[in-house]
Amino acid sequence: MNISIVGTGNVGTGLAKVLSKTRHGVVMGARTEAKGRAAADAIVKEHGGNVRGSDVASAVRDADVVILAVPYAETADVIAIAGSLSGKIVIDATNPLTEDFSGLTLGFESSAAEEIQKRVAGAPVVKAFNTVFAQIYAEGPRFGERPVQVFYAGDDDAAKKAVSEIINAAGFDAVDAGPLKNARYLEPLAALNIQLGYSLGRGTQIAPAWIEREAA
Amino acid sequence: MNISIVGTGNVGTGLAKVLSKTRHGVVMGARTEAKGRAAADAIVKEHGGNVRGSDVASAVRDADVVILAVPYAETADVIAIAGSLSGKIVIDATNPLTEDFSGLTLGFESSAAEEIQKRVAGAPVVKAFNTVFAQIYAEGPRFGERPVQVFYAGDDDAAKKAVSEIINAAGFDAVDAGPLKNARYLEPLAALNIQLGYSLGRGTQIAPAWIEREAA
Repeated sequence: MNISIVGTGNVGTGLAKVLSKTRHGVVMGARTEAKGRAAADAIVKEHGGNVRGSDVASAVRDADVVILAVPYAETADVIAIAGSLSGKIVIDATNPLTEDFSGLTLGFESSAAEEIQKRVAGAPVVKAFNTVFAQIYAEGPRFGERPVQVFYAGDDDAAKKAVSEIINAAGFDAVDAGPLKNARYLEPLAALNIQLGYSLGRGTQIAPAWIEREAA
Repeated sequence: MNISIVGTGNVGTGLAKVLSKTRHGVVMGARTEAKGRAAADAIVKEHGGNVRGSDVASAVRDADVVILAVPYAETADVIAIAGSLSGKIVIDATNPLTEDFSGLTLGFESSAAEEIQKRVAGAPVVKAFNTVFAQIYAEGPRFGERPVQVFYAGDDDAAKKAVSEIINAAGFDAVDAGPLKNARYLEPLAALNIQLGYSLGRGTQIAPAWIEREAA
């Protein structure tokens, strides 16, 4: 297939590098043809692979798949200059982040944890255990050798420390997820876990985790 | 520490089982003392460990830590009967789920992907690649032996199949995340990834993943 990547920033360039190693044709689309070509040439020079560059409309014209790799705020503008996308597959690789990357500009209001904190003013609330299927407790806190990660978020450091010790004492791996308002992310994390486990049939012996690249 | 678990359902019972194996004292709080005792006795009988049962107010009174393990909709009610929580640590293990578990009742409006789909009516939008730090493309799609998981969500099955093949061809592990509206969960997943990588100092060679218990 012909894949058009709209955006020549870190994400667009990174995607072009990995996709250029596949059997798919990759074209990078930029505001100007010159900018698109420069981005593609830089990748080929440094990295090899098969990447061409062009302006957005030209890059999109012959594409089967169009990857939007621009800031979300620019997507409306980019779509307007892209020409017809009818019948093409559009991959949305964007995130509706605030300018300081600290939050989302869509679907971002409150959380159960924050609502609960309003009701228990004198007590520090820590979000925790909300992404662990109850069936996991029955089978034990480890998947083979690997402890299930339990995310905790709160605004009171002493309370967070105590909770992390409880999580680890129970055999889980306590993962600091930041301030209480990050419950706005931990609750959707649980919702996605439920979607995967039930709607998508993966069952309840699954859990979200953050994995890291081992040091070389 | 004394830990009070409010709620005797699957989550409360599961937490009581794992916490009863720690050095912490565990008391389960239910609507009535009889119900709390029955829940605790069942755990001790089946599972051993040190768990007591009582009514909510009594269970909370001497607790250092109170775990809310009831449906979110019941939390206001439970807090009202719990008595003073001042100075105690409250662990919120709830999720503000809709009755059919299909979504969230807080912080749940729209997503970049859905807004983009409105703008490109003729083209199926697939959410993908939004949880991969650009720096991961530079280092390669695998962490050691393990391919980084790339989540994709959309409403057009053919488009999703094509995108999953592209993801796998690039060396990642394509994970079906369901319909396009699940971008409402994938975008917060990216926001949490950014919080962990930047605000919490874990760096950019990290990625969210779903892990599974190996079959025994």
